[in-house]
Amino acid sequence: MSVFQATASAPVNIACIKYWGKRDTKLILPTNSSLSVTLDQDHLRSTTTSRADPSFKKDTLWLNGKDDPIKEGGRLATCINELKRLRKVLVEDKDASAPKLSTYAVHIASYNNFPTAAGLASSASGFAALVSSLAKLYELPSTPSELSLIARQGSGSACRSLFGGYVAWEMGTKADGSDSYAVEVAPQSHWPEMHAVICVVNDAKKGTSSTSGMQRTVETSALLQHRIKHVVPKRMADISAAIQARDFDAFAQITMADSNQFHAVALDTEPPIFYMNDVSKAIIALIVEYNRVALEKTGHLKAAYTYDAGPNAVIYTLQENAKEIVELIHKYFPQKEAFNDRFQLFGGEGVKGKVVEGFNEAVAQPHEVDAVKGIIHTKVGDGPRTLGAEESLLNAEGTPKTLA
Amino acid sequence: MSVFQATASAPVNIACIKYWGKRDTKLILPTNSSLSVTLDQDHLRSTTTSRADPSFKKDTLWLNGKDDPIKEGGRLATCINELKRLRKVLVEDKDASAPKLSTYAVHIASYNNFPTAAGLASSASGFAALVSSLAKLYELPSTPSELSLIARQGSGSACRSLFGGYVAWEMGTKADGSDSYAVEVAPQSHWPEMHAVICVVNDAKKGTSSTSGMQRTVETSALLQHRIKHVVPKRMADISAAIQARDFDAFAQITMADSNQFHAVALDTEPPIFYMNDVSKAIIALIVEYNRVALEKTGHLKAAYTYDAGPNAVIYTLQENAKEIVELIHKYFPQKEAFNDRFQLFGGEGVKGKVVEGFNEAVAQPHEVDAVKGIIHTKVGDGPRTLGAEESLLNAEGTPKTLA
Repeated sequence: MSVFQATASAPVNIACIKYWGKRDTKLILPTNSSLSVTLDQDHLRSTTTSRADPSFKKDTLWLNGKDDPIKEGGRLATCINELKRLRKVLVEDKDASAPKLSTYAVHIASYNNFPTAAGLASSASGFAALVSSLAKLYELPSTPSELSLIARQGSGSACRSLFGGYVAWEMGTKADGSDSYAVEVAPQSHWPEMHAVICVVNDAKKGTSSTSGMQRTVETSALLQHRIKHVVPKRMADISAAIQARDFDAFAQITMADSNQFHAVALDTEPPIFYMNDVSKAIIALIVEYNRVALEKTGHLKAAYTYDAGPNAVIYTLQENAKEIVELIHKYFPQKEAFNDRFQLFGGEGVKGKVVEGFNEAVAQPHEVDAVKGIIHTKVGDGPRTLGAEESLLNAEGTPKTLA
Repeated sequence: MSVFQATASAPVNIACIKYWGKRDTKLILPTNSSLSVTLDQDHLRSTTTSRADPSFKKDTLWLNGKDDPIKEGGRLATCINELKRLRKVLVEDKDASAPKLSTYAVHIASYNNFPTAAGLASSASGFAALVSSLAKLYELPSTPSELSLIARQGSGSACRSLFGGYVAWEMGTKADGSDSYAVEVAPQSHWPEMHAVICVVNDAKKGTSSTSGMQRTVETSALLQHRIKHVVPKRMADISAAIQARDFDAFAQITMADSNQFHAVALDTEPPIFYMNDVSKAIIALIVEYNRVALEKTGHLKAAYTYDAGPNAVIYTLQENAKEIVELIHKYFPQKEAFNDRFQLFGGEGVKGKVVEGFNEAVAQPHEVDAVKGIIHTKVGDGPRTLGAEESLLNAEGTPKTLA
């Protein structure tokens, strides 16, 4: 008997123009367009295996090996049902010989290769991998943009993880959400020098969830509508042009301004929402000073910080500057664990904390070990990948393999 | 021979609708109107003695006993010269017998009764006291609003310290600034139950000065203009009405929203400006939770936080709730020095840290001693006072007395 199964992996993406606010909370339709860089799934990824089998009793998901109940009417169920519907309409109804996979329950095993404790949102890569693996299993003829419509309903920003490179989520205007999907602004290969240094910041307290936080901003901020109507559209156009032109100065300036403005409207919420803490702010001070020196010496910016709904910093930079930034962060934030030197910047002796010449060291205080729990160096990457059977996360019985 | 001398004291004011941005940096004309509560000068004040004497060589100022050079063309010189001009025009030109004080140099001694280290802006009370003492010395017939036009040119928010109670600074529209002055919204006696608990927050690093910070916001924030044009005018009207009606709920809601929005536009600046730190944010979390409990129990808010260009919290509350707030702050922020119990809330045994029933203690972590360096309990107060000769800060020679 055939095994109907597919495995896919999908990347994390980090927005430069931030998504904050829904105009439809059920369909997950945003109040503004957004734009992100897809990060390399060689480093950070979600992997998902989906199997359809007539013997399965009900749709079941295991997340990192643990049963994660699928709530009826919930976002996960919405995605699975929509993909089954497409299987029926686009495949089975057109080809009578196609197995009726849409009528079988599915077993899904999903695994993130980065710890939840890292504070990196796994819902984007997770839903993108889930949609990709089911689309492969069902042999759907859908394009990444079409699949992004489904991933969007799982987790808004997941739609952007259906592409590699530089990706826009066009907000759309239709009530049914059919024009609210992701498009590729430029592939990874257009500007492969874009690197990212992620600083995982220690956070004592749990912040406001982005789902509830963004709706509170929609309801109470006196500034959000201005951002939506008058600021974001121009920034979307400008940063797309900057990416086309590989203009890092413009890319960095817009990315930092939009991170700041996202946190500004979060603060303009009642009660106010704070995602950045004093460590996040110290990293901003370092990047501002690093750019000041760079601008003075070269006339160009060298780094762009951005913060999502948490205290972690993602610092975009071009490949040639990544070493300086890793050294800079180490200088102020001593690390407990050795830096994972994926790009072989440092050779055998490891990283030494260091600032560039002319850097005013007084812009921040050195912190204690663990203020920044980890530093991840990665770069722009490709979109979802289909993996071979040997990568399956399900065993013969259709339950999760035990991972090493 | 006569001694021409006057002494005045003036209060601190803390804005509920924040002043942030100048449309004219020389005349100090703001981009929006603002509104403040004047605090009791029995507790926090600047006192200034001015003396005019033909033997004096040049205008001289001592601030807290230390010679503070008067820069030609600077703000201090502008205020002194404008008051001399009024002396000539309004007094000497009309009454030939009036001594020609406008032709004498002045010696000015000014003293703040709160330490600079407290992080409370002393420029507002300082310029208000200076203008008040010179106006008295020169026997000017000017009203407080007229004097506020002069104080404004010393330090914008100083104009609001020319009145007690609840004070608006009308931004005005004229290019010469002649309609940009303070007016009384309501006197202290209209709503004397307004108390303030000031938390002096320890701050490791020196923040951006408000003078340079606000102009950077004017130049780079994409949100400030919306605030100025579409948010502040309605808030000014609404909070004035709330004060007239003694409606603490509306007063508190607007005060907190405007503090948040001021810090939001500071964050929306390039590079971003942060005045609040993690301790400031913890105090916000406490007040939000305290209000949540109050709303649930009584249907009303009990406290309103507000932050100026620094990490200190000012918590407005009605007299009846001041004790609970002082206890709440002590619970999370242990104090090195004994609380100055001006209103005899606690009797002999001193303050015990305590939360109200139903309060979720997990909203913040208890901090170490000195995270909040001091707690000052005060209330709404009156406007500048003229003091007797026995309060003079100048000795017979016209130099500062040594203060105990």
